[in-house]
Amino acid sequence: MAFAVDATGQVTLENDPALPVDYVWVLICGFLVFFMQAGFAMVESGFCRAKNATNLLSKNLIDFVVASLTFFAIGYGFLKGNDVGGFIGSGFWFLRGGAYDVGTYLDFFWQLVFCGTAATIVSGAVAERLKFSAYLVYTFFVSLFIYPVYAHWVWGGGWLSQLPLGLGHIDFAGSGVVHALGGMVGLAGAIVLGPRFGKYGKDGKPRAIPGHSITLAALGTFILWFGWFGFNPGSTFSAHHLRIAVVAVNTNLAAAAGAMSTLLIMYLKTRRWDLGMALNGALGGLVAVTAPCAWIEGWAAVVIGAVAGLIVVGGVYFLESRGVDDPVGAVSVHGFNGLWGLLSIGLFADGTYGLYSLEAPYVTGLLYGGGIGQFLAQLIGAVVLAAWSFGLGFLLFKLMDLAFGIRVSPEEELQGLDIKEHGTPAYPEFTHRQTFIIR
Amino acid sequence: MAFAVDATGQVTLENDPALPVDYVWVLICGFLVFFMQAGFAMVESGFCRAKNATNLLSKNLIDFVVASLTFFAIGYGFLKGNDVGGFIGSGFWFLRGGAYDVGTYLDFFWQLVFCGTAATIVSGAVAERLKFSAYLVYTFFVSLFIYPVYAHWVWGGGWLSQLPLGLGHIDFAGSGVVHALGGMVGLAGAIVLGPRFGKYGKDGKPRAIPGHSITLAALGTFILWFGWFGFNPGSTFSAHHLRIAVVAVNTNLAAAAGAMSTLLIMYLKTRRWDLGMALNGALGGLVAVTAPCAWIEGWAAVVIGAVAGLIVVGGVYFLESRGVDDPVGAVSVHGFNGLWGLLSIGLFADGTYGLYSLEAPYVTGLLYGGGIGQFLAQLIGAVVLAAWSFGLGFLLFKLMDLAFGIRVSPEEELQGLDIKEHGTPAYPEFTHRQTFIIR
Amino acid sequence: MAFAVDATGQVTLENDPALPVDYVWVLICGFLVFFMQAGFAMVESGFCRAKNATNLLSKNLIDFVVASLTFFAIGYGFLKGNDVGGFIGSGFWFLRGGAYDVGTYLDFFWQLVFCGTAATIVSGAVAERLKFSAYLVYTFFVSLFIYPVYAHWVWGGGWLSQLPLGLGHIDFAGSGVVHALGGMVGLAGAIVLGPRFGKYGKDGKPRAIPGHSITLAALGTFILWFGWFGFNPGSTFSAHHLRIAVVAVNTNLAAAAGAMSTLLIMYLKTRRWDLGMALNGALGGLVAVTAPCAWIEGWAAVVIGAVAGLIVVGGVYFLESRGVDDPVGAVSVHGFNGLWGLLSIGLFADGTYGLYSLEAPYVTGLLYGGGIGQFLAQLIGAVVLAAWSFGLGFLLFKLMDLAFGIRVSPEEELQGLDIKEHGTPAYPEFTHRQTFIIR
Repeated sequence: MAFAVDATGQVTLENDPALPVDYVWVLICGFLVFFMQAGFAMVESGFCRAKNATNLLSKNLIDFVVASLTFFAIGYGFLKGNDVGGFIGSGFWFLRGGAYDVGTYLDFFWQLVFCGTAATIVSGAVAERLKFSAYLVYTFFVSLFIYPVYAHWVWGGGWLSQLPLGLGHIDFAGSGVVHALGGMVGLAGAIVLGPRFGKYGKDGKPRAIPGHSITLAALGTFILWFGWFGFNPGSTFSAHHLRIAVVAVNTNLAAAAGAMSTLLIMYLKTRRWDLGMALNGALGGLVAVTAPCAWIEGWAAVVIGAVAGLIVVGGVYFLESRGVDDPVGAVSVHGFNGLWGLLSIGLFADGTYGLYSLEAPYVTGLLYGGGIGQFLAQLIGAVVLAAWSFGLGFLLFKLMDLAFGIRVSPEEELQGLDIKEHGTPAYPEFTHRQTFIIR
Repeated sequence: MAFAVDATGQVTLENDPALPVDYVWVLICGFLVFFMQAGFAMVESGFCRAKNATNLLSKNLIDFVVASLTFFAIGYGFLKGNDVGGFIGSGFWFLRGGAYDVGTYLDFFWQLVFCGTAATIVSGAVAERLKFSAYLVYTFFVSLFIYPVYAHWVWGGGWLSQLPLGLGHIDFAGSGVVHALGGMVGLAGAIVLGPRFGKYGKDGKPRAIPGHSITLAALGTFILWFGWFGFNPGSTFSAHHLRIAVVAVNTNLAAAAGAMSTLLIMYLKTRRWDLGMALNGALGGLVAVTAPCAWIEGWAAVVIGAVAGLIVVGGVYFLESRGVDDPVGAVSVHGFNGLWGLLSIGLFADGTYGLYSLEAPYVTGLLYGGGIGQFLAQLIGAVVLAAWSFGLGFLLFKLMDLAFGIRVSPEEELQGLDIKEHGTPAYPEFTHRQTFIIR
Repeated sequence: MAFAVDATGQVTLENDPALPVDYVWVLICGFLVFFMQAGFAMVESGFCRAKNATNLLSKNLIDFVVASLTFFAIGYGFLKGNDVGGFIGSGFWFLRGGAYDVGTYLDFFWQLVFCGTAATIVSGAVAERLKFSAYLVYTFFVSLFIYPVYAHWVWGGGWLSQLPLGLGHIDFAGSGVVHALGGMVGLAGAIVLGPRFGKYGKDGKPRAIPGHSITLAALGTFILWFGWFGFNPGSTFSAHHLRIAVVAVNTNLAAAAGAMSTLLIMYLKTRRWDLGMALNGALGGLVAVTAPCAWIEGWAAVVIGAVAGLIVVGGVYFLESRGVDDPVGAVSVHGFNGLWGLLSIGLFADGTYGLYSLEAPYVTGLLYGGGIGQFLAQLIGAVVLAAWSFGLGFLLFKLMDLAFGIRVSPEEELQGLDIKEHGTPAYPEFTHRQTFIIR
């Protein structure tokens, strides 16, 4: 018999007979979060060109595969092992020995699907030009170190959670830990890579490169929205917090408000109902509400989501005008809105719910008479996060580029990555052609 | 701190420690119902032409977005606020004050995803010719008034639920409240709009206009079937009703019987195995069983589903022959079968389950020795529903048409709505061509 | 009122007030298993050619439809009715009378979605050449007899479960009962049918026939992976087994390891990152871990999955070289890996969990000091399963072939099955062309 603490689950159940509903809640929500992988795969390949679809799907598969194995072996220990100096955890390697326990396996599953989400965000920002091998190396390091260590600072008892301001830096379901981290690493990758061939005209003006299937992008967005109902409410890690109902409502309201504000802004700007932007607006709202979702009421979720929609539009145009080519808008959706979500806690938290707890102290923001402390804690965490993830991401992509070159050859980029990297065009029976829209 | 009844959830939990499993059940089922939005989007765009795919996806996104915001602000109060004269509810605006309560938020979430389903049914019936702006206005009024008020009559303690016949007009999960309502509003829209250009030949004979992707239609149907397992069983609003197992089985049996009967009828008629019709047959079975699902046993679900398949085929040919162009069959699937579902309760209810209750009185139909009363209550509700939804729907589309014209220009219809309304063809890299099948 | 044991559920609840969470767990996991139908439909049509997409989708719909009705009427009784001589069950026909009980309906729902999974596996192996009518007959017999009887032997108290070796032949969630059975019947079908036109060149060398959409294949794989989180953890049939957390983790690890090992093998072989194979590798890992998932720890799941990836690659090349044309790799993924999963229990079971039970005796394999008995019981079951399913499958397809011919005409095969069998090409607006890759 294997050495274990409680691998059978019998003792754990005897100690707390009310646990099954919590296990059911966490597992099913975790399954929903896993399913977001399908959503990312559809959104990213839909927003990119047919000639790179196999490549994008491959990356969206392999990041979760690599994360599963790496995080199992080492990463989870860095996140949730015994805290070492507030910086990193240690233990639980390969979930063996004392980690062979139903409670630990449950927590691992939850943390893993979050790690996998952070990892997969990057593929969109570096789409249509990054070598698959470079992506393999990137996913290894992000799930081994970049993600687990920062997550340890916030969710593993590390130094950010201990900040003597407000209740410390807090992030309910990971606007920062998951989304901004992925978005900022993606920004670093996009900068190191440079824009895609054809993105900028001879006059230096950016050109829109339409994706090959808005249907896939829409399907993927619905899947992500669906999965987010696991992501946010499941982050109570307990069904005994009936607050999960409030979290679900807030999640939905922010998504709706994000889509609506983006749609209207774009309509005012272009007199067109821009579906692609509206989809990103919904995702931006979801990202932004992820950090505050448990600590706010409905109207605040609407405001946070509507602002998120603005940030998506502004972010996309800003990056494009600065020469940063982010094919699917991942940096604006996940990066900028992840940071906005962190800050919004300091404004809108309404003092009715604690730190994953039904007991006071409750989180309170400026608008509800909380002091400036919580806002500052959020600001510090956001700055640290941006520096950590952009910094390490830049270093990683730059070092890989020096070592073996992370960008495919111009010929390959023009032909599409599917043929040479994968040997399989995505739609071998259908002819397709290049398209650009001059802005 | 925000004013609230029990926003934390602590008091609610103390009063009933068994509640967490009910919250988990309702929320997860609600997530599944939300996911039906993806199913509708795939079915409708799959059954329509590529040149209108972006438009259909946009409508399927925006109806849920508008419903989320409108229903949050006002609609939910009309449904579940304090009853005013049996006609309408009042209160709960913006879920503020006393509505900031975990139980109210839970109920809101559930009611919202149902409202969103009713709203999204219409887009199929008015597909390929309705202006996006008209759809925006429509979704506002359906989620503000048409849906909430009728739902109040049945589920909010309004007058239909108080009919002194049988146990009053009843509708377990909304064959009527959700599906027939959406289908009848859709019928009104299709009539006001008139048929699509090319739907009828010079001889006046209808022509089939094949959808651009039966794959999307099939995917969407599977997603809807999956989501229906939330829709129907979740409508107990409690996991303590172990009857949920019966509801799940009945839901599945009716879907299977609907697909099978449609497939066989079409084979006898055309010697072809018609997948599109079989998909609609499955959906018709699901719609029909939605009202009776908790009050019948398995064999009755098979019969109800098989009849539903007949109704789908008959309805499609009937409407087509009368000059009503319903591109995806939404009126037959949701409208006619929704009404059939209401009536079927009066026939097949078997006296083993009550009104969302384990306690008698149980619902009993004619075949199990119940009197004619329940059947009459169902009939009255069905007639009222058809009049209310068709009437208000007709008025709404007609008034909009007079005010600003709800149909796109002939040129735009020919070119497809994606370019001019949205600026984005769905598949810019792929060429496609028009197709018709002469019947 | 209908005759029933406890159709209301009230008595069952009073006898065990902790049941609701188990019902919720089993139902939601069952919904996820149902959703795998969508996954199979997408994978199979994606891996096949556009000209047969409607046909594949139709088969993937109708097998679940036929299984739902047949299994409801008779099949479930053969599986779970009163045991007759260790061979077959008897009773529960149409779920009437004493079978009208919430517990029986719950069990039926669970068994049905498993039966439906077994049935749908076959369509991939016989794709692009089997008549739809033959498929209809096949699905009837597999859900009436082939599946229920074998399942009775393992899960219904039949003779294999009573083997006096180890704890008898065991199969936690159906690597054998579901997957190997479907895969072996599929092998029989593929052999009786012979290879597709064009699969082998004039020199007798096999040629790869690429599928029409790797995007659909990827989407389907993600859906299947997602659904498997219902399939395996739900097989505890109780949320009170906190072991479900371990099952979920193992399921995921095997999938990841399978994808990774396949990807690396193919890269070493072809210098290409082969997405199609990696998707099948993930599925192979999932199949293999299905039998042992509850009885092993994480590292073993990684090993089992990695070996499964090898088996997928080896199996595909082996069958191809022997003239067996399995268009989607179903035999290797489900058949061979199903058998491997059965054997792996005898090696890796670690003695921490029992037969769907928290109480000893726990299952122990050779590597953890269990005797050879369990391994032998697994081996016997695997041999019996292969003989039963391949034998009956061969007989069934052969008899149908003699009776009415199971293969479409050469002209129809060349044109694709969609036009003549179904009257509907899947993508009528898009032109497509034939493609082959010479190996």
